Amino acid sequence: MSVLVVGSIAIDTVKTPVEEHSDLLGGSASYAALAASFFSPVRLVGVVGDDFPKSEFDFWRSRKIDTEGVQQVNGKTFRWSGEYSWDLNTRETRSIDLNVFEDFKPVLPKAYRHTDFVLLANIAPSLQRHVLEQMERPRFVVADTMDLWIETARSDLDELLRRVDLLILNDSEAREMTKETSLIKAGRRIQKMGPAHVAIKKGEHGALLFGQGDQFFSCGAYPLEDIHDPTGAGDTFAGGLAGYLAAHVKQNVTFELLRKAVIYGSVLASFCVEAFSLERLRKLTQDEIADRYQMFKMMSQFEVLA
Amino acid sequence: MSVLVVGSIAIDTVKTPVEEHSDLLGGSASYAALAASFFSPVRLVGVVGDDFPKSEFDFWRSRKIDTEGVQQVNGKTFRWSGEYSWDLNTRETRSIDLNVFEDFKPVLPKAYRHTDFVLLANIAPSLQRHVLEQMERPRFVVADTMDLWIETARSDLDELLRRVDLLILNDSEAREMTKETSLIKAGRRIQKMGPAHVAIKKGEHGALLFGQGDQFFSCGAYPLEDIHDPTGAGDTFAGGLAGYLAAHVKQNVTFELLRKAVIYGSVLASFCVEAFSLERLRKLTQDEIADRYQMFKMMSQFEVLA
Repeated sequence: MSVLVVGSIAIDTVKTPVEEHSDLLGGSASYAALAASFFSPVRLVGVVGDDFPKSEFDFWRSRKIDTEGVQQVNGKTFRWSGEYSWDLNTRETRSIDLNVFEDFKPVLPKAYRHTDFVLLANIAPSLQRHVLEQMERPRFVVADTMDLWIETARSDLDELLRRVDLLILNDSEAREMTKETSLIKAGRRIQKMGPAHVAIKKGEHGALLFGQGDQFFSCGAYPLEDIHDPTGAGDTFAGGLAGYLAAHVKQNVTFELLRKAVIYGSVLASFCVEAFSLERLRKLTQDEIADRYQMFKMMSQFEVLA
Repeated sequence: MSVLVVGSIAIDTVKTPVEEHSDLLGGSASYAALAASFFSPVRLVGVVGDDFPKSEFDFWRSRKIDTEGVQQVNGKTFRWSGEYSWDLNTRETRSIDLNVFEDFKPVLPKAYRHTDFVLLANIAPSLQRHVLEQMERPRFVVADTMDLWIETARSDLDELLRRVDLLILNDSEAREMTKETSLIKAGRRIQKMGPAHVAIKKGEHGALLFGQGDQFFSCGAYPLEDIHDPTGAGDTFAGGLAGYLAAHVKQNVTFELLRKAVIYGSVLASFCVEAFSLERLRKLTQDEIADRYQMFKMMSQFEVLA
C-alpha cells in the first residue's frame, strides 16, 4: 500500500561544531518520503520554488516517490538554517525564509485522495488538517509535530489530534504538551486527547510507544558512536515507521506491527544522522537495513529467540 | 553461590515534594543486600552504631543475609538526609553525619573471604579496595560508584577499576568520568580503564550494558507512573543484578547472563521506588518479580518469542 506524505521541502544550511554545509536538501517531507520509500510507494505533497533542482524530482521518481502532489511555483524554495550545540543535543534556528511556503495550500491530486496510509510530517497543524480533509477515509493517519505548534497553534493541534491514529513527538514536547514530568503519564494523557497510539522519541535514549490498554513498548536507540548531523532524524523515524506499516499491514494495524514499525523507523533514523542532509539515506541499501534490524534485535533481547 | 555486599548502612531522612519521612533504613548496602537476597545468600559487610535497631538484624537473618560482617560499635549510625526536586530527577543532600562510618575499616570475617561474587556497593573507593584486598580470588567483582568519588577520589577509583569486572554508574557520572558526551563512547572508554563490563544507568530511560567486542545491550525502564521515593534505586539495581548473577552463573559469567541480570536489577529497582526506604522491597514476593520480568519482556520484544 502507498503512503501519502505531506510536509516541508526545504533547502537547508546546517552547522555543527565540526562542519558547516549549505544548499542541502531538507524539510520534513523530504526525509520522511525517502525513508518511507524503502518500504512502500510514496505520494508526496509539498511545494518548491523555481530554484529547486530538477535532479531531486528525478531522484524521487527513481525511488517510487510520486511527485504529482509537489507544486513547483514561482519564487524561492523554503530555506532553513540551524546550528547545533557541542553535544548535538540542542539546536538553534539561525534563519527561516518561508518563501513559497508562505502561501502553500496543499491541493491533493485526485489520484492521492484514496491513499490508505497518511503521514502528516511536521508542518503547521492547520495544513496537516487541510490535507486530511481532502482525503477519503484513510485507514491510518500518523502525525508528527513539534514544540513550535504546541506553543503557537495549540487549538489547531488539539483539533487535529482527534483525527489522528498515531501522534509522534519528542520527550520534551510530550512534557510541554501535558505538563506531566513522567513520560509515561504524558503518553497516556496524549492518548486521551485523541490518538489511540503515541510514540515519544527520546533521541539517544530511543523511543516509547503507547497503545490500547496497557500496551507499551520501549525501544533503545542504535548505539552510534559518531553522529554527523541530527537534522531530519525525527522525520526519517516517522517516514520509516509509516512506510513499514503501509507495506506490512494485513487486516488491522496491530500493536505487534507498530512495534516493528518503531524499530524500522529507528533503524532508518540511525542511518540518517551518519551524514549531512539525506546523503546517507540516498546510498542506503535494503541489506544494510536488514543488518541493522538484526543488531536492534541483538541489543534488546534478553532471552534467546527461536 | 553467595554474594558479599559491602557499602553504607544508614538512617535516612527523605523529603519529596509530597512527603517527608525520617528514621528510615537506608544506605547502599541495605538496599543492595536486600535486593540480592531475592536470588542468592548474602554476606553483608558494614558498620552501625549502638542506636541501630535490633529488629533490622532479625529481618536480615530472616532473609538469607549473613550479618557476621556487620560491626556494631559505640556511637551513632551514619545519617543522611536528602530532598528531591519537583520532578524527582535531582536531589540535594541536606545533611550527612558520618558518625560511626567515619572510622569504618571493614574487616572481613574469615568465612567471607572465599565468596565468589562481590558487590562493592557505593562507598569510598579506598574502602571498596580494602575489602577486595582481603578476599581470595573472587570470581566476579561488581562495583558501584558515584559523582562524589569521581570528583574527590579519582586516583583511588582509577586503581579500583583495574580490579573490577563490572562497573555500574549513572549517565551523568559516565560523561563526567570520561568527558565524552556520547554514552556509547563513554561506556567504551571506561572499559579501557579496566572493567570488562560497564553498566550505565539512565533513570527513567533504562540502562546500557557494554561487554567485550561489540557486545551491547539496551534495556528500557519499567513504565511506572508514580514514583514515591527514588532513594536506593541504583543500589537496588546493583544488588539485584549481582544476586541474579551469583544464583545463575554456570561456567562463566556470559553476556547473556549479564543481560538477564540487568533486567532483574531493573525489576528490583522498579519496585524499590514505589515506596519510601526499603518498605516495598520488604514486602516483595518472588511472584511479583516473575510477573514484572514478564512485563519487561513484553515491553521490549518486537518479535514474538517462542
